[in-house]
Formats: sequence, C-alpha cells, structure tokens
Amino acid sequence: MSILQKSTALQKTTSSYTFARMMENNTNSVGIMETRTIRVVEQGEPLPLECGKTLGPIDVAYETCGQLNEAGDNAILICHALSGNAHVAGYNHPEDKKPGWWEGMVGPGKGIDTNQYFVVCSNFLGGCSGTTGPSSTNPETGRPYGLDFPIITIADMVRVQKLLLDKLGVKHLLAVIGGSIGGMQVLQWSIAYPEMMDAAIPIATTTHLGAQSIAFDAVGRNAILADANFANGQYHDNQVPAHGLAIARMIGHITYLSEQGMRQKFGRELQSADKYSYDLNSEFAVETYLDHQGQSFVERFDANSYLYITKASDYFDLARDYGSLKEAFANVQARFLAVSFSSDWLFTPGQSEAMVDALVANGKNVSYCNIVSTYGHDAFLLENDTLGAFLSSFLRASHRPDIVGAGPRACPGQPQGPAPTREKRRFSRFEQAHRARVDYELIGSLIEPGSRVLDVGCGDGDLLAKLASDRKIEGKGIELDQDLVVGCIGRGIAIIQRDIERGLGSYVDRSFDYVILSQTVQTIKDPERVFNELLRVGRKVIVSFPNFAHWRCRLQLLLTGRAPVTRQLPFRWHNTPNIHSLSLKDFEEFCGKLGVTIEKRIPLVKTSPSPVRFGPNLFAEQVIYVTSKSS
Amino acid sequence: MSILQKSTALQKTTSSYTFARMMENNTNSVGIMETRTIRVVEQGEPLPLECGKTLGPIDVAYETCGQLNEAGDNAILICHALSGNAHVAGYNHPEDKKPGWWEGMVGPGKGIDTNQYFVVCSNFLGGCSGTTGPSSTNPETGRPYGLDFPIITIADMVRVQKLLLDKLGVKHLLAVIGGSIGGMQVLQWSIAYPEMMDAAIPIATTTHLGAQSIAFDAVGRNAILADANFANGQYHDNQVPAHGLAIARMIGHITYLSEQGMRQKFGRELQSADKYSYDLNSEFAVETYLDHQGQSFVERFDANSYLYITKASDYFDLARDYGSLKEAFANVQARFLAVSFSSDWLFTPGQSEAMVDALVANGKNVSYCNIVSTYGHDAFLLENDTLGAFLSSFLRASHRPDIVGAGPRACPGQPQGPAPTREKRRFSRFEQAHRARVDYELIGSLIEPGSRVLDVGCGDGDLLAKLASDRKIEGKGIELDQDLVVGCIGRGIAIIQRDIERGLGSYVDRSFDYVILSQTVQTIKDPERVFNELLRVGRKVIVSFPNFAHWRCRLQLLLTGRAPVTRQLPFRWHNTPNIHSLSLKDFEEFCGKLGVTIEKRIPLVKTSPSPVRFGPNLFAEQVIYVTSKSS
Repeated sequence: MSILQKSTALQKTTSSYTFARMMENNTNSVGIMETRTIRVVEQGEPLPLECGKTLGPIDVAYETCGQLNEAGDNAILICHALSGNAHVAGYNHPEDKKPGWWEGMVGPGKGIDTNQYFVVCSNFLGGCSGTTGPSSTNPETGRPYGLDFPIITIADMVRVQKLLLDKLGVKHLLAVIGGSIGGMQVLQWSIAYPEMMDAAIPIATTTHLGAQSIAFDAVGRNAILADANFANGQYHDNQVPAHGLAIARMIGHITYLSEQGMRQKFGRELQSADKYSYDLNSEFAVETYLDHQGQSFVERFDANSYLYITKASDYFDLARDYGSLKEAFANVQARFLAVSFSSDWLFTPGQSEAMVDALVANGKNVSYCNIVSTYGHDAFLLENDTLGAFLSSFLRASHRPDIVGAGPRACPGQPQGPAPTREKRRFSRFEQAHRARVDYELIGSLIEPGSRVLDVGCGDGDLLAKLASDRKIEGKGIELDQDLVVGCIGRGIAIIQRDIERGLGSYVDRSFDYVILSQTVQTIKDPERVFNELLRVGRKVIVSFPNFAHWRCRLQLLLTGRAPVTRQLPFRWHNTPNIHSLSLKDFEEFCGKLGVTIEKRIPLVKTSPSPVRFGPNLFAEQVIYVTSKSS
Repeated sequence: MSILQKSTALQKTTSSYTFARMMENNTNSVGIMETRTIRVVEQGEPLPLECGKTLGPIDVAYETCGQLNEAGDNAILICHALSGNAHVAGYNHPEDKKPGWWEGMVGPGKGIDTNQYFVVCSNFLGGCSGTTGPSSTNPETGRPYGLDFPIITIADMVRVQKLLLDKLGVKHLLAVIGGSIGGMQVLQWSIAYPEMMDAAIPIATTTHLGAQSIAFDAVGRNAILADANFANGQYHDNQVPAHGLAIARMIGHITYLSEQGMRQKFGRELQSADKYSYDLNSEFAVETYLDHQGQSFVERFDANSYLYITKASDYFDLARDYGSLKEAFANVQARFLAVSFSSDWLFTPGQSEAMVDALVANGKNVSYCNIVSTYGHDAFLLENDTLGAFLSSFLRASHRPDIVGAGPRACPGQPQGPAPTREKRRFSRFEQAHRARVDYELIGSLIEPGSRVLDVGCGDGDLLAKLASDRKIEGKGIELDQDLVVGCIGRGIAIIQRDIERGLGSYVDRSFDYVILSQTVQTIKDPERVFNELLRVGRKVIVSFPNFAHWRCRLQLLLTGRAPVTRQLPFRWHNTPNIHSLSLKDFEEFCGKLGVTIEKRIPLVKTSPSPVRFGPNLFAEQVIYVTSKSS
C-alpha cells in the first residue's frame, strides 16, 4: 500500500459518534484527515538555499485529500499563507472544534472539488507546524535552531514542495493554488517548474511587497526582537516573546481586514459597557478582538517562524530576481487565473493587475478577476461562494478543455455570483451586444481562420466562443462585469476584468490579428484614446456601432424635435448608456483625423444580414468597420 | 508692558549672525520665538475634567506671533496634532537647525499671514512640551504623575486653551485652525465656544475615529504597556520604554503616509547595499527610515503622553457626546472650512464629508475641499502651497467680508493652486458655463431678492457673486474642480467640493428657495436621480441647457448626416462633455414623467436676451426652466 493509498484508506474508515455529528453539520467535508510528516532532505545531503547556506535534514508535514486518478492529471497543490499549515480541510480528530483553514473551499462539491481532484497541502519550509523551521532541532547543537536557522526564501519553500511531490509520486500538477504568501509560491512554481503544471491560481497576492507592506512587516519583527523574552531567539526553555509576537500579529491582523469591514464588524462598540471606563484598559470591541487575536496566535505560532516567513515575504521580488517582471514570466506555461479583492489594501488589485500585465506582455494565457468584497485581504478565506465559482470553472476548463469552449454559458450545479442588479443590467454592454447579435455573423466572416483575436467588452464570451468553434481562432477577452467574467472562465476563455477606459496596459504592439470593439465605442468616455490603443495592439480593429444618422433618427429629430429613440438606439436621453452619438460620416472623419485606414465598411439593417448598398449613412441602422493603421 | 507686547518685542530685537544667515534662507520666517509658560489653573482650584476627576495646577506652554490689532479681531488659535507643540513657527534659538512644526504655513505673507494676524499656539493638556501632562510633577507625591494622571479628553484640552486665551486677554478669535487631533480641537472649540470665533478650519480630521484607527492606536499603546521598562508608568528614574514607544511611533508613522507616497519615496530600495544581507537586520530604506523615526521620537516624546493623547483621540466622538453629529453642530456659529486630502487613509475624505454633511444638515456656512495629494495624512504639514491658498483666501474672506463677494476672481499676490491642465480645462463645466453666460442675466431676474440659493456646478462662483451683489441672496455652491473651489473661497462663497452624481447627502428638504443647475444637466450620468435630489432640497429648481432640437442641429443631422456641432454644442462626438442630448420637448416629457411642474420656460438664442416667442423647440439655442415639485 503506497503512502497515498494509506492516507485515503484512513479517510474512509474513520467513524465515530463525534465525527458523525460533525459531518451532519458539514455534509460536504472531507472528514478526518491525518497530518503526515516525511523527510525530503537528509542531513548528509543538505539542500542548498538561496542565501548560500545549506539545510538538512528537512521534514515536511503534509495532508492529502481526494484521489489521484490513473492518468495522474488531477493533482492540485495548495500553498498556505503566513499562519496556515498542512491542515487545509476536514478535521484531524473527531473532537476538533475547528476544521482546516480552507474548509470552505476544499471538499466534495466545493470550489476545489475533492471528488474530482487530488489535493496536496504541506506546511512550508520555515514554518512551525511540522515542517522544518527555526523551532526544529539544529543537528549541530541538539537545540532549536532559533536565529541560527538560515534565511529562507519563497523559492526555497517551493523547492521543498517539489521534493515532497517527488516523494509522493506526483509527477504532474493540474494546478497550484494559493492566497497571499501562498500566491507568491504559486508564482514561483509557475516559473521554477513550468512544464509540471497546467494551471496557476495566484489569489490576493503580489510579485513583490511595496514599501508600506515591508514597513508593517518590519514593525512586527521589531516588536518580537525588542521583547525582553526574545533572548536572541533562544527562548524555548523559558518564556516565549509573547508580547512581541502578539503585537506583530495585531499589526498584521489590521492589514488583513479592510477599513469598511472593520467599521461594519466593530464600529465604535464598547466590549462590555455603555460608558467609557476612563482608564487605559482595552474597552472598544476592536481592541479586545485584537487582544484575543494576538493571544491566540501566541499559543499556536512560533515567534522565530514569524520573523523568517515575513522576511521571506519581504525578499520576494520577481522583477529583481529575473531582471523584470516580464522576463520573470517569459517561460511560464501554465494557464493563469489571478484573483484579487476590491478592498484588499495589503496586496492590492493594482498589484495583481501589474502581474497580469506582465503575463499579457508575454502573450500568456491569463484570466483575471477583481472580486468585489469588503473583507479586505482575508477575503480569500471568506468569499467562498464567489471565489469557489471562479476556481471550479477554471479548474474544469483546465482539466477538461474539450468540454468547454463553445459550451453552455452558465455552469450548471456550480455556485454562481449574485444576479446582476437591475441598475447594472440596464447599463450592461452585454445586453446591448445581444441587441446587436446580427453583427456577430458578419464579424465572424471577416476573420481569418486561426487568427489571434481580442474581443473588448466581450460580455459572457458568446462571440469568442462562436469564433473559436467556427473559425478556430485563439481568442481572448476583456470585460468589466464580474458576473460576465465568471461566465467566460467557465467557457475556457482567457478573460481579463478591466476597464477599457484605462487603456490596454502592456499588451504588446500587434499582438492580435484582430481586435473587436462591438457596439461599445459609443459608450466609451474617451474614444480617441481607446481607439488608438486598439490600433496599437491589433493589426486590424473591427468596430461596430449604431448609426445615429439613420433616416429614422434624422426624421425623428427633424419632425418631433426629440432625441431619437429607435430599435437600434432604444434608450431615452436620460437613461442611455450611449454617451456619444455618431454616424458613419462622423466615424470616417474621425479615422481620417487619426490617420486610420478603413479597409472595409459593412452598413447593415437589423432585419437583414446583407449590407446596405445605397445611401449607407442614411439607411444603415448599424455598421461594421474593419480598420488598420500603419505603425 | 503686557505679556503680548514683551513677546513681540523679543521677536524684533533678537539678532545674531546665525539668525541673519538663517533668515537669508527663509526670508519670510517669523524669526526667533520664545516658548512661554503660564499657570492657568491653580492647585487650590483644580479643573474638573470630563472623566470626573480634577486636575491642578495646570501650566500651559505657548508661543505667539504677529500682533493683536486694536479691534482685537485678528487672533488665530492654532491647535497642534499628536507630536506637535507650542513652537509652531520660527526658531527658538539662533542655533536651531529646524524651525517650528508649521513653518511652511505660518509667517509673513504665508497661508496664515503673521503680518495680518495674531497667532497663538499652545502645547495641549496631557502633552510633554511644557504643558501639564503625565510627566509633570504630581503635587500629591512630588513625583511625575505617570499613570496617576487622570484620563483627559479633547474637550478638556479645549477648556485649558480657553483659560490660556483668557489669561492672554484674547477675547475673540478670528479663527481656530488645526490638523489631525488639532482638527478635533477645532471642532470642539466651535461647539464649546460658538460665540467666540468667526471661523473654524478643521484639516485632515474627523468627528470620531473608526475601528481601524482605534486599532492602530491600541496596538501602539499595547507596545508601550508591554515594554519591560514601562514599570507601570514610573520609568522616569530609569530607562524609558524606548522600544515600545518607538514601535508605537513606527505604526503611527505608517498611517501618516500613503501607500503611493511610500512607494514613491522608498520603493524597495535597500539602504546601503545592492544585495540582500540574508539576515534579520533592517536593510530596506523604509525599514531604516522607520527605525530613525522611532528612535528620534523616543528622544523628544514621553511614552505616558503618547498613551493619554491617543486615548483622548479614541474617545473623541461628537455623535456620542451630543446624541448625533447633526445635534453636535446645532449651535455652532463659525464659518467652516473643512479640508481633507485625497490619499489620507487615517482620517479619510469620507470622514470629512460626513462632518460637512452634518454642518450642511444644520444649514451652517461651510466650505469643503478635498485636496489631491499623495502625502497621505501628513499632507496637512506638507501641501503648503495648495493649503496655504485655501487658508489665506478663507481667512481674508472671514476677516474682511466686505472686500469679498463680487470681488475679483483671483486673489492677487496669494499662492494659487496649479493651473488646470489642458485635459481638465477641456471638460470643465466652468468653461461651458462661460459659453452660456447670457443665461446668467435671465436667471438673476427669476430669483426673488434675499432668497437662499444653491448653485450646483457653480464654477468659480460668478453667478453666485453676481446674485449676491444684484439680488442680495444668501448663496451656496457645489463644484467638483479643486481650482474653481479655491476661487469661490476667495470670494467668500460657501462652497462644497462634491460630485453631484453622488447626490446631495444631508441637505435638508426645501433648505433652498432656488437650486440652479446651469448648463450641467446634459453632462450628468444619471439626470433623473440628480434632478429628484435638487427638487427635494429646493423649492424651485432652475435648469438651463443647450437645445439639441435647434433647427441648426436638426438640419445638420438631416442634411450632413453628422452629429451636430453648433455654437451652443461646440464639441465633436468623441470629445464632448455632453453625454446626453436633449431638447425642450425631451425635458418637458421628462418633467411630466417625474410629476414635476414647469413654472416658467425661457427659450433663448445666444445673441439676444429676449425669449424666443415662436417655435421654441425649433428656434431656441438654449433654454431656462423654472421647475418645482409638490412634496
């Protein structure tokens, strides 16, 4: 019986009254899990570390759930964050009060579905939950390493994870997934072992810490180092530096929550009185909460590990390691799904966007979503429904690419994001696109088979899916609406959530054969800037829009003296998403001014796929242009 | 010779080589200043504090600059923030390397002009720079108070400042000004002594700390209390709790800077090496900077004072003290200028807006500006040019209301904000308003003399100034553009910087006789929501806009097939700020739908002030409506 079979057997046979009761409340838990420890580096053959020193022996604590399939293509490595450990889901003992740290995401039918995937999670190098770290015994002294432990890096952690997988016989990873410092490990994995993995899912993470994050880490370390009990790291036989570690944890904890989240959760509530106590004791609810967080952390975490792990996090800097962020990602092969959270101010959406830009600049397959949440950085542990929908869709598309693509828009049986509000729906470009579906057929006919296509404002990916199916294109999308983005991901489309008004960032010049802007130009604040961007990244730009100079519009304005409302421009003056009115002539003059060549013009009426032959600016309801600009 | 005369004399007579050299570099400094100390509370008649205890004696350290005029109407009280003191400007000694903490703002010809105003600044109660605080001698023990010092509040600090002014013979204040915790004192002053002051200028402050700010304060206090040297506050004869105080200061310092500011200033630079040191020492520039900040703070500040002042700040909560924020401000009489900074995440623009909303809800005279800055909370000490322009304009308008109003748009000789960029100018509503100046004459004729008028999108206040001069109205304005806001303030107009799309917040129903929306409705995203808000706060709403159904527009679209460009609608389809096209008929239908009564309609052509009599929807270039809605 292999290690993996034993571990699976344990899951199946464990049964007790407590466990049964537990499972009643949590019917989709993986159940009882065992943390195992395995030696991956022997003392005699120590591991060379990035700092120049070597380390051995190295033991790794890990857990697995689900089963590795025969093809060996369903293994997922989960990397934990600062205070996590190998115990990702389920319960170590029937009496456990709390499940693993990502119970909401990992289990049968969950975002990371253990019925389908084989999940491995290990405590990282330098940790204090079973894997070798500063509290482990230094074989040279027989005492805990303390500050004699060598400085470790994220790359060292990843190397040790690779050694673990070798020992477990896992040769290929469907995905590496992790949030925060776990996300840094994901990025490092994608660079260090590009051929070993299909997908990378870095969540709420960054390619490097900014000055503010380093500052918070530094103050936390200062608090530990200044604790009178720290004793130069050799506190193991005496009192631990509890005050210092608690203060470090409190600082960290504030950065994991958002301002609005703290306001909603605590406000200015007093913990146990109506009136101020007029002393210096903790009395606001948020104070006692932090006291509790600090205290409970001291009971389960090692101060030296805190020093080493935050230092590894501060040192992580892909641009520094590889010359630039673009070069760092030059050789990655995985499909990426990057996820950030709107209120995360520790590792911000902007940092995820920079990472995504660097992948885009390399022409990599990358999807990105910034999930709206008030939970701050901690959202990656709390937004289970929304994040779960993204993960399950993306994992399915990565695992079984054949069943996605032109497939159904929604993913039945999977949790979906909340339905769009009425407000949102009213202005959705997607709905507009629906109204103009007739132009999809024609746009398809304009595109060479096998081309690289970027659809800007791609909605739920209908056009891209159609083009992938009919013309075998390599399609990518940009869309602002979170609900539409999850739909695209379910169809296996590389989709980036982005406001097109902010430009196309680091998309390389001429990186697409076609860029499509369907029924969107009239909704953009600064069409000149956006259009120039599209012409930069695409050899040809296909633009479609409703014609404001259609005879119905002209006559309505002339005869009724009202802003026109037609089937192509169905909105009233005050609730229209169309902030610009333009005709064929307007657009052609605009192209002339920008030095843009109009290669083709297809004026259309809604009822017919045939182009309008006579008086297009008068008779066309909408129009499709193929444009280009010599660089 | 009175105390004040002596202090002034000192300024004039001091002269030395060092001082002369110093003044060369800083020609507009107030020069040599002396910190004086005065007893404001005797031991025998101790001051009752908010906590229920009493305190006496109380000494106050203070400085003054400028001269109190004969009318006694030019005195300004400046309240300092956490780490400040009485030494606001100039130099205490010719050998001083650094001037007072607000040297950039206080001095001859500066934002707070000591040629015009008499400035008083005192160290607050509980401080450690001369005013009685926890490091002062407890008369009962003969030793420093330490933790026997009673808990003090912002209201206690203000009460002591009032006692100081009584002693100095200052009976009236032109203004009370302060940033951060100093701003809290300003708010408390306006409530506690409403009749004593003309103007209140709270800067980068809040009416209460949110959970996040309390949390940061609490962790800082924890660090001090946990320091092994703290000795229950009686550390004066031994080592001070330097580690704890330094850590508290470091945490605080991070919250005073902005993320983007830290990124620009430090990035990931290493302090003195090219390569990582692979140890736990401080090596990033931001780390050594924080180490320095912590260390230098320990040398000049008392740990107990830090505990007491942050606690006073945490306790400050006007809504709690007075039932609600609205009730708190019910009896203030001062004109307010509230200033926040865009990147301040400690006391956020949103918190200033809530304060302004509460003042607005009381119908008070309040101006507000959110200054764009990357300096974070510290901006109030660094944005001298921009903030100085606001302060000098507002102080002038407060001191000499007769010379402002319809006065010149700019304030000659005063620092002005940066010139608007070309981009900004192109879309400025102000420019549009200029193009439509003809409607000002007519709008004036529609307004009853002596009315309360709100001008939404008021530009630089031209219309309000004209109405104030011609019709003696009581005018208030709303404008988004920072440069235009400073212009309004210079004219003495109560102006709030706000995006009208966000609604009118807590403006009371029917709080204006007229609300004016001049040449703006066509630039608003959601006119229905905004228009309903205007109809709520105004008895009548006056709306003017360009007529899209003017015959030139109709014919241009009909005959040329292009989006119309006329002298009234001068923009091209792609660069217009007008995101809606509407005609008289469109607007009247819209009013019908919303149940709005059209009381008057004045269709106009640009060349004539006489209304168009025939075919208004065809011949009017623009139109003015007077509308109302029964509630």
